Amino acid sequence: MQKLREECGVFGVYAGAPQCDTNLASTCYYGLFSLQHRGQESCGIVLNDDGVFHAYKDNGLVEQVFTPEVLEYLGQGRIAVGHCRYGTAGSEDRVNAQPLVINHIKGSMALAMNGNLTNALELREELELTGAIFHTNSNCEVIAHLITAERIKSSSIEEAVNRTMDRLEGAYSLVVMSPTKLIAARDPHGFHPLCYGQREDGAYVVASESCALQAVGAEFAADIKPGQIVIFDKDGIRTIDTHCGVVERSTCVFEYIYFARPDSVIDGSSVHNARVRAGAMLALEHPVQADVVVGAPDSGLDAAIGYARQSGIPYGIGLIKNKYIGRTFIAPGQKSREDKVRIKLSPVKATIEGKRVVLVDDSIVRGTTLNKVVKMLRNAGAKEVHVRVAAPPFLYPCYYGTDISSSGVLVAHNRTTEEICEIIGADSLGYMTIKDVVHIAENGGGCGYCTACFDGKYPTKVPVCNRKHRSEQKISEKEERHE
Amino acid sequence: MQKLREECGVFGVYAGAPQCDTNLASTCYYGLFSLQHRGQESCGIVLNDDGVFHAYKDNGLVEQVFTPEVLEYLGQGRIAVGHCRYGTAGSEDRVNAQPLVINHIKGSMALAMNGNLTNALELREELELTGAIFHTNSNCEVIAHLITAERIKSSSIEEAVNRTMDRLEGAYSLVVMSPTKLIAARDPHGFHPLCYGQREDGAYVVASESCALQAVGAEFAADIKPGQIVIFDKDGIRTIDTHCGVVERSTCVFEYIYFARPDSVIDGSSVHNARVRAGAMLALEHPVQADVVVGAPDSGLDAAIGYARQSGIPYGIGLIKNKYIGRTFIAPGQKSREDKVRIKLSPVKATIEGKRVVLVDDSIVRGTTLNKVVKMLRNAGAKEVHVRVAAPPFLYPCYYGTDISSSGVLVAHNRTTEEICEIIGADSLGYMTIKDVVHIAENGGGCGYCTACFDGKYPTKVPVCNRKHRSEQKISEKEERHE
Amino acid sequence: MQKLREECGVFGVYAGAPQCDTNLASTCYYGLFSLQHRGQESCGIVLNDDGVFHAYKDNGLVEQVFTPEVLEYLGQGRIAVGHCRYGTAGSEDRVNAQPLVINHIKGSMALAMNGNLTNALELREELELTGAIFHTNSNCEVIAHLITAERIKSSSIEEAVNRTMDRLEGAYSLVVMSPTKLIAARDPHGFHPLCYGQREDGAYVVASESCALQAVGAEFAADIKPGQIVIFDKDGIRTIDTHCGVVERSTCVFEYIYFARPDSVIDGSSVHNARVRAGAMLALEHPVQADVVVGAPDSGLDAAIGYARQSGIPYGIGLIKNKYIGRTFIAPGQKSREDKVRIKLSPVKATIEGKRVVLVDDSIVRGTTLNKVVKMLRNAGAKEVHVRVAAPPFLYPCYYGTDISSSGVLVAHNRTTEEICEIIGADSLGYMTIKDVVHIAENGGGCGYCTACFDGKYPTKVPVCNRKHRSEQKISEKEERHE
Amino acid sequence: MQKLREECGVFGVYAGAPQCDTNLASTCYYGLFSLQHRGQESCGIVLNDDGVFHAYKDNGLVEQVFTPEVLEYLGQGRIAVGHCRYGTAGSEDRVNAQPLVINHIKGSMALAMNGNLTNALELREELELTGAIFHTNSNCEVIAHLITAERIKSSSIEEAVNRTMDRLEGAYSLVVMSPTKLIAARDPHGFHPLCYGQREDGAYVVASESCALQAVGAEFAADIKPGQIVIFDKDGIRTIDTHCGVVERSTCVFEYIYFARPDSVIDGSSVHNARVRAGAMLALEHPVQADVVVGAPDSGLDAAIGYARQSGIPYGIGLIKNKYIGRTFIAPGQKSREDKVRIKLSPVKATIEGKRVVLVDDSIVRGTTLNKVVKMLRNAGAKEVHVRVAAPPFLYPCYYGTDISSSGVLVAHNRTTEEICEIIGADSLGYMTIKDVVHIAENGGGCGYCTACFDGKYPTKVPVCNRKHRSEQKISEKEERHE
Repeated sequence: MQKLREECGVFGVYAGAPQCDTNLASTCYYGLFSLQHRGQESCGIVLNDDGVFHAYKDNGLVEQVFTPEVLEYLGQGRIAVGHCRYGTAGSEDRVNAQPLVINHIKGSMALAMNGNLTNALELREELELTGAIFHTNSNCEVIAHLITAERIKSSSIEEAVNRTMDRLEGAYSLVVMSPTKLIAARDPHGFHPLCYGQREDGAYVVASESCALQAVGAEFAADIKPGQIVIFDKDGIRTIDTHCGVVERSTCVFEYIYFARPDSVIDGSSVHNARVRAGAMLALEHPVQADVVVGAPDSGLDAAIGYARQSGIPYGIGLIKNKYIGRTFIAPGQKSREDKVRIKLSPVKATIEGKRVVLVDDSIVRGTTLNKVVKMLRNAGAKEVHVRVAAPPFLYPCYYGTDISSSGVLVAHNRTTEEICEIIGADSLGYMTIKDVVHIAENGGGCGYCTACFDGKYPTKVPVCNRKHRSEQKISEKEERHE
Repeated sequence: MQKLREECGVFGVYAGAPQCDTNLASTCYYGLFSLQHRGQESCGIVLNDDGVFHAYKDNGLVEQVFTPEVLEYLGQGRIAVGHCRYGTAGSEDRVNAQPLVINHIKGSMALAMNGNLTNALELREELELTGAIFHTNSNCEVIAHLITAERIKSSSIEEAVNRTMDRLEGAYSLVVMSPTKLIAARDPHGFHPLCYGQREDGAYVVASESCALQAVGAEFAADIKPGQIVIFDKDGIRTIDTHCGVVERSTCVFEYIYFARPDSVIDGSSVHNARVRAGAMLALEHPVQADVVVGAPDSGLDAAIGYARQSGIPYGIGLIKNKYIGRTFIAPGQKSREDKVRIKLSPVKATIEGKRVVLVDDSIVRGTTLNKVVKMLRNAGAKEVHVRVAAPPFLYPCYYGTDISSSGVLVAHNRTTEEICEIIGADSLGYMTIKDVVHIAENGGGCGYCTACFDGKYPTKVPVCNRKHRSEQKISEKEERHE
Repeated sequence: MQKLREECGVFGVYAGAPQCDTNLASTCYYGLFSLQHRGQESCGIVLNDDGVFHAYKDNGLVEQVFTPEVLEYLGQGRIAVGHCRYGTAGSEDRVNAQPLVINHIKGSMALAMNGNLTNALELREELELTGAIFHTNSNCEVIAHLITAERIKSSSIEEAVNRTMDRLEGAYSLVVMSPTKLIAARDPHGFHPLCYGQREDGAYVVASESCALQAVGAEFAADIKPGQIVIFDKDGIRTIDTHCGVVERSTCVFEYIYFARPDSVIDGSSVHNARVRAGAMLALEHPVQADVVVGAPDSGLDAAIGYARQSGIPYGIGLIKNKYIGRTFIAPGQKSREDKVRIKLSPVKATIEGKRVVLVDDSIVRGTTLNKVVKMLRNAGAKEVHVRVAAPPFLYPCYYGTDISSSGVLVAHNRTTEEICEIIGADSLGYMTIKDVVHIAENGGGCGYCTACFDGKYPTKVPVCNRKHRSEQKISEKEERHE
Repeated sequence: MQKLREECGVFGVYAGAPQCDTNLASTCYYGLFSLQHRGQESCGIVLNDDGVFHAYKDNGLVEQVFTPEVLEYLGQGRIAVGHCRYGTAGSEDRVNAQPLVINHIKGSMALAMNGNLTNALELREELELTGAIFHTNSNCEVIAHLITAERIKSSSIEEAVNRTMDRLEGAYSLVVMSPTKLIAARDPHGFHPLCYGQREDGAYVVASESCALQAVGAEFAADIKPGQIVIFDKDGIRTIDTHCGVVERSTCVFEYIYFARPDSVIDGSSVHNARVRAGAMLALEHPVQADVVVGAPDSGLDAAIGYARQSGIPYGIGLIKNKYIGRTFIAPGQKSREDKVRIKLSPVKATIEGKRVVLVDDSIVRGTTLNKVVKMLRNAGAKEVHVRVAAPPFLYPCYYGTDISSSGVLVAHNRTTEEICEIIGADSLGYMTIKDVVHIAENGGGCGYCTACFDGKYPTKVPVCNRKHRSEQKISEKEERHE
């Protein structure tokens, strides 16, 4: 389905204690496997075997890239970092795959990040003027240069990371591996999640989402606070809080709505519960007389349950997703979008026929796919189709690491809800309000969330010359390809 | 999850009218794609271009085998048949992939079947005594020999098929393509489903399940009746009902419980509704005080909704299945079953924690995986876990085309429900009764279903020297590998 | 280079003695590897493990098809047969890959052959009238049916093979594996080679060419005589000579000229020596004043040495073949034949510049490639280029298992030597005479060779309705593609 | 066979004129294809489309890496560079594949080199102290940093290259691509070859060997002189000769003996002729009474011809190399070296039997393979085997870009010729002398060649802490694997 994409998932493990299992390639594999929803384009793992780094990264899913041969090649180690990434299709991007591994005067360093710096261009130009060389287009390489420069003046890698954070603006959940340490850092706004935990064997695990801790058998310990640096080394854990609380927290609300996995818990709030609450809020704000509530699989299911519970309308399974569709599926011989949608989704007539249907989805990007789904439900006998969307309309581009664009491709751009309703062909359409959306997390207080894509209130300066035009072009190509 | 496997899906299309789209490779592709759940081991398509047959079959999923190059190689045609098949892993089976394509004195013939003959061995020996040569182990080749032998004595291919059916015992949903005709035939017991429909352009489509008609844009016309032969040729449709009603119908009840897709309708009954009804029956037969009903994804979800509705206990999403797991996933570095289950399934703590949970699954084979899932729910904070199974216990081998074995690997073999409950570690366990299971289809009348795997009452003679011992050995290897 | 293609190589091994190495998959691998020049399109190996046959065949080179996994799958055994095959490109042919494995009333049987029957069509029609089914288009399947039919009436498989040979016309070097025996048979004309030997461990090895015996460490024992059947079983070796000497021997002279490997010895004559003699005969028949003799790599090198020795003109290395060109190389971005030739061959200016060059090649099919090579030599500074061809001109189609066609694509068709010389752009052109060619083998006596492609004198009846038209079309497509 | 390896081939093309073909991906493809013998491990091409660089590199042969899809991805351009590389097997090296593409303040730059710096470590440490980051272990990245640093202070890229050359010690044949220019530079010693030419359409082509010019249809113009820089840009060609003649030329003599292709011409001398002369010198220095001279295919053939001509002993084809052996061939089931050699080489009995044989090879590394070849010739009936080697014994490690090691693996290490002769099992053994070897090139004058691997007289300072120990370990692993 026509979806937005998070740009990354990061993972790290520090297994310094003698009793720890050192097969960290396998640990990273499972961690990245459970973060795969955050990036399906490329992935990478770097193992640190007593200061010697073994890295492997390539385009493809974790299962495809990390064959038994590759895992064996990575070998054993006591520290490791991993990354999965969404990016544009094709060979072009392989050089941008993370973690980035570089060598400097103090040895090797590996970095992986989730997010996007808003001052990357300025920082890069400044570095280039001093003779710096760049191999990639990634923000990560800018950060690597800054840390390296600071490292020469600093007594420790963590001090260099701390100083570097003074220079960075924007969103970053970062893991850094030095020859002897694993460091995790989250930007002061806390745009994207980052947490850590501990395995029974004593190994520390850092991950973008708590579901990855669960996947490797680690007990959740804590979210890394906005602005916080956590250091894992032979002396255990230490934190540096210099940047904590210096700006207002503004966590991406879309992590709750769509990006994160429902079994993750971010900053103390269950993602699943947030979605169920979103569904319930939708039911309160946009009630309708109907016979069944169905969710658009998979990400609309939780909110559909919330809507059903709040409204008292029965929850049903109305759409089946073909689970054999691979990542790169290109519908042979099919030219129309109807055909393509029909391959991926199939209506359950028994649920739909003769019913007034509430269809709950998590968001609308262009609306073209949703239009076909509504048609599909009508063809299956739905008397009415009422669409409820568990997010406000997208109107503004995101500069913090997702691919939400301001372009005319967004269906909500310059259109009223009624106009959008007509485009998607529904009997009624209800969006969640911005007022409500900041309350979907259980512990939220109406403040602390970034809602810039809905209201244009950016928590940071935004790039003057943004690269969104290129992105916009890409998004439409991708939709053509992937939806 | 530890699941049973159907052995096949069949598909056929007859596009004889001038206005029909002749890109039937693409039509078969989508048809097989939607039948992929019936067989993931190998697949094949044969196109008939005015009597010249082009065939391609290989091990792998539809998406893997039928690359754009292969589809182009298959070319255009006005009749086509396809098949997807479950079989043992490895290269050994490629020769058994279907459709079978053979040449005889009257030209080419392609056959594809779902099911298993119970007198295959006798028929084969009889044929071999006359000098017949066999290239495969498939029942299909036995049928091909019989049809060929009858064809010489018959005035038409359909007459030869009709005569052949006099010789066949057991389960078969069959499609046969001659140079000019497409023929569909279903065994007199109607063990497995088979139906047909028509596309807007006039092409006729035959498929194991109605979901495949939907996938290629065809309108469902009718189920092929047990014992019926349907012929599609230049004169339109004709039916031969010689074998209809000669024996009592005994449709495999497990098609409703697990094998078929929920959006399919078999012999007039919605599969989804049958599962919801099964859940409701379970709730009546095995009520329990609990806080949430969760389904084991994906095949337990429909019954869970039925249980929830009937019991009034809220339905929740309690387990997330990692959708990036490929067909051949082998967990690297993981030795224990706990680890493997954890990679594939993840509990949603927000749904489970502190709750008394009803877990609805469709069946139990060995029970080892279910044991880990129950543990997983307890670790996520479930106060109680009550397992409800939408099928009676498996006790007897199936001879009709599924891999249900009588072996000691079946957890229900020689065990009471209490003992099984202890093995899976649940607080309580409730199976559906055989008395109930024959009522889950909407139009069912308590008769007409094969429940042999539950009660040993086989609707046909069974093979004296059965091959189940070999199968049993295979099933345990596979479980080790795939679950 | 624009070359003719042999259609097959066969291989078999019987390792019945207790002390024999039973890793026959590996033995077949090396045997086929050394016969790869006889067929690069598909290959197959069948292992007989005490009556249970394990087979694997696919399109591709031996090295590509027989991965370590496949070899392990084939397992151990005491009898095995293998085959490599030239065929048309593409997936279409996989079903025709050999060895053919079938089951009949007496158990399994595997067959592999090199050659072509001239009465295959008649035999097939006769069999089909009795209800026989054919899965492939190969002659091998016709033979399998005949042997099966005779087997029922015979006391042994060898008796059935013997009786079957009464029915076969044309060229066949055949290996047959039954549950307990390995049988090798060569047609009464002895069109294609077949020989056997013995390894130090006592295992018997049968192969199309003696180079394969050398490759597996077996000592050459004897050529299988035209019309002879050799049986390897628990009682050792036995021969049946019923068909020996019933017709005049007519071994394909092109085996010596081009098809066979120079290190093979066929029917007592060294292939290398035959080529050297051919070169010497050319020098006697077509002398020229020149400075250097160069061979067209690789198959013209031996004859070039013969020409040089006889004429006294120095032998030189004038053309280098790029050894990194794979079987499926398709020149990207190159439209002209010049470009394609330039990629594969490169002149050694140091040898050529300012010299009068004699270029020795083994044959000319269409002449287009040779034209480019002559140009290439001139561009490299050759003052004169004199082409000498170690075979007479092709004028007639071959029906015995090679792809020599009678079509207008043959440059010699309806043209004088002068005209051909002009087409290839040489200063002079000399072909070997038919009178000479039958003397190139050391032990030849001017009789006993098939020269039908040169003089149209076919040693057997030829098919009335031949399939050469289709072949001709194919050959031109292939040349476009491969040369 | 047990061979040494060159480490690289470089290629570049400048197609600035309007009439030039801009399909430079294809041009690079053919260029690299003909340089494949200089590096089979990885390859890469970078296209410059008006300042935008498109790069693709991967492990594998040119034909494998540059699929039609990849070539299409690379697109069109007016400047391009390419590289092929020998390196250690496995995934580890992909990051070191060239050309290196980096971005600096003046835009993009791509570099590819053949050779090895002897002061790389010192330069790298110096750069790291200033905060430089390294992504690879390649010398190329050191050069990129130096050029970038100089570029800021220079008015042009060529000035920066010129200044950088002041800092570099060792061997380098370098191509550099800036947004608007192609630059070729050769180290002042001229260790490895580098030349350029022009195509008919006006495009300039730079390549490691002249055979690559021939392959893309370019006319050879000139060798790039030791110490020379050649600039190709919109103003045509310019040269900078600052470093020319500042040190004595010391071209690697092994380029003539083994590395280069026989159809290449290096610094005015034909490689083929050099080898023929080497063979003749061997005949003068080490005459023997014998019946036939055979070369070890493929690289010993030219010298064998020279030996035969000088000695008057007939030249023969005594060994056939199986041309179907792929780069990664691993002999299944074969444990002994005899078996492995037998797969790759086969004796031509007709040439060998009953003869006194002179076997000419280009060099001996460990001697183990040669020992098996000598045995093979004896088994084929050779009465005597006299080995003649067209190079002096290896005794010292090479620091200039080849993998000649000083280790005990070298058979000549601490052994007399008699001892080596015994090890290889020959009747006599003769090496070329160092005195002779410097005369094999036609225009050589006894000076101007690097013979350090024979006599330890290094033309530059050598690294104090050399990495040869690791290399030595690798070479023995490789020999185990590849020979």
